Amino acid sequence: MSTWPNRKLLDLLQIEVPIIQAPMAGSDSVALARGVCSAGALGSLACALLSANEIRDAAREIRQGMARPFNLNFFCHTMEPPASAAKEKWRELLRPHYGRLALDIDAVQETRLRLPFDDEVCEAVEAVLPKAVSFHFGLPASRLMDRLKKLGIRILASATSVREAAWLEDHGCDAIIAQGFEAGGHRAMFLETAVASQVGLFALLPQVVDAVSVPVIAAGGIADARGIVAAFALGASGVQIGTAYLFCPEAKISPLYRQALQHATDTGTAITNLFSGRPARGMVNRYLREAGPLCETALPFPYAATLVTALRTASEEAGSLDYMQLWAGQAAGLADALPAADLTRKLASEALDCLGV
Amino acid sequence: MSTWPNRKLLDLLQIEVPIIQAPMAGSDSVALARGVCSAGALGSLACALLSANEIRDAAREIRQGMARPFNLNFFCHTMEPPASAAKEKWRELLRPHYGRLALDIDAVQETRLRLPFDDEVCEAVEAVLPKAVSFHFGLPASRLMDRLKKLGIRILASATSVREAAWLEDHGCDAIIAQGFEAGGHRAMFLETAVASQVGLFALLPQVVDAVSVPVIAAGGIADARGIVAAFALGASGVQIGTAYLFCPEAKISPLYRQALQHATDTGTAITNLFSGRPARGMVNRYLREAGPLCETALPFPYAATLVTALRTASEEAGSLDYMQLWAGQAAGLADALPAADLTRKLASEALDCLGV
Repeated sequence: MSTWPNRKLLDLLQIEVPIIQAPMAGSDSVALARGVCSAGALGSLACALLSANEIRDAAREIRQGMARPFNLNFFCHTMEPPASAAKEKWRELLRPHYGRLALDIDAVQETRLRLPFDDEVCEAVEAVLPKAVSFHFGLPASRLMDRLKKLGIRILASATSVREAAWLEDHGCDAIIAQGFEAGGHRAMFLETAVASQVGLFALLPQVVDAVSVPVIAAGGIADARGIVAAFALGASGVQIGTAYLFCPEAKISPLYRQALQHATDTGTAITNLFSGRPARGMVNRYLREAGPLCETALPFPYAATLVTALRTASEEAGSLDYMQLWAGQAAGLADALPAADLTRKLASEALDCLGV
Repeated sequence: MSTWPNRKLLDLLQIEVPIIQAPMAGSDSVALARGVCSAGALGSLACALLSANEIRDAAREIRQGMARPFNLNFFCHTMEPPASAAKEKWRELLRPHYGRLALDIDAVQETRLRLPFDDEVCEAVEAVLPKAVSFHFGLPASRLMDRLKKLGIRILASATSVREAAWLEDHGCDAIIAQGFEAGGHRAMFLETAVASQVGLFALLPQVVDAVSVPVIAAGGIADARGIVAAFALGASGVQIGTAYLFCPEAKISPLYRQALQHATDTGTAITNLFSGRPARGMVNRYLREAGPLCETALPFPYAATLVTALRTASEEAGSLDYMQLWAGQAAGLADALPAADLTRKLASEALDCLGV
């Protein structure tokens, strides 16, 4: 019987399989997290778009008839409303795209914005008492960190560089997610600002492992057992997998998005700030080609999203990928479409076979 | 006694250690290649800046008292001289930088340009009869390929995507170097054009391995034994290592470049076309920050280099990194400064220990 070569993360989180299902705001689900947890790994739920009450409800559903560790994920950003000149410039940049979809940009309503972790949400998390909380874009204020740590909640956070990893360890993280350039969705960057100097997982992971003493979780470009084995070889204590879980029936994605993923190629994505204002990796479509992938006019996170939501919705309703937000990592082409529990078990058993004593 | 888990590349090239020292035009040397070969791996010599006679001389030196396989490397590009309007635009962009170094841009002489593999060079290679020839930027005309293959010379070439790998296999390559986004120096891109969609090694390698039947060599972000083990886990039959070999005393780099490498960080590089006209990864300095890292005005490869050479030289003479061409990959921070033979033996023995049965 094979065993994992490194038990640091298993022991920290009291799980059996060193896989974390990546939180994916808007695409993950209670069912997805439950499936992953049921196979002994760590299911996650992205909470950036949920209210405190919705978080309590979701946690109750995850726990229904199951006593397994799970993870709640939050963004840590500051809300800095843009000046009206910047808003106007962004509006004018998007106007022709609205025209193409026969939409009126001046009729757009405010949408629900991604909110940072705050006192109210912290209270909900204290009540829920998950095994782990993971943060993206840095960490919340130390008084909020202290409240979570006092309750024994394990704090995870993502780093895109050695410098960010060291900072996270210094500020009390129990484990660090090394997010390679390959990863789908938002870059965790919080000290780094240059997208052009973001680091591939092969180079990032061992350098982070050498720099910190807490367990390191490899993320980005891992979608099959080979990637898990390689991550352990580079010093990881576990992996975080996102895109591969989007293929699960439990993922809450539209049929068009699902179809696009099935045709994903290695070179089919780019890092763009066109949807939220922060750099994130998604599939290249007309919007990225014509307005980006990186665009200086995009409003800062999360304000850029307000004017993009209508474009995304109209595009999808018209059966077109042109303006859809199609977060995906560079290894989508390796993924298997299986239920979350089956996928988790398959990844674990194939990896253990390769690692086998 | 441990053995390599995959002997495809060892058998193809008749070597004992599945490491290829990356060819690095301007920085590699006969001594470096000999050191690597003497340890049972494959030393390489970049020939893009050498004449046919210089290639013959270098091969003779590599062979002096040693009968080991080695690799000669060539670029495959078409020479398309830019129009004078484009040349003028590039000159005007560089003029203030020349001014800063008190140089006269209108006095610049033509420099030796990187030349593609052609009939004359092919004749030299036929005479030299190396075990392997590796190509960058695609492959030469099929009649030249045929001449090499007829003599039993193994043909290697680099791919930055699954599509490029499949193309190279279809066109007769005996092994394919999967060049991850992390790699220092020139991107091998020949079908791909979007730098923003280049792929990290973690995602690229297994997808290339799945797509071709010839042995795959992992390149980019590998600078220690952990990287070698991880590459094998992802399906590689060998690795190509560049930046780590720049730390060897045999590497022909200036003291300033060497010093910069010793302080390299994970996020200290970017892909730039500012030196040659083609995208290549180097350390970020003032030139990259102010004019790039990617710049539409840069002349096409290799013509951009003509006006940059004087800047590079003057910068180095002034003891400044500002305009130096500092090719480096993202894992420079992992490298050990050892003689090439010692480094090769250390990498091999540490990797074998980890892979150990």
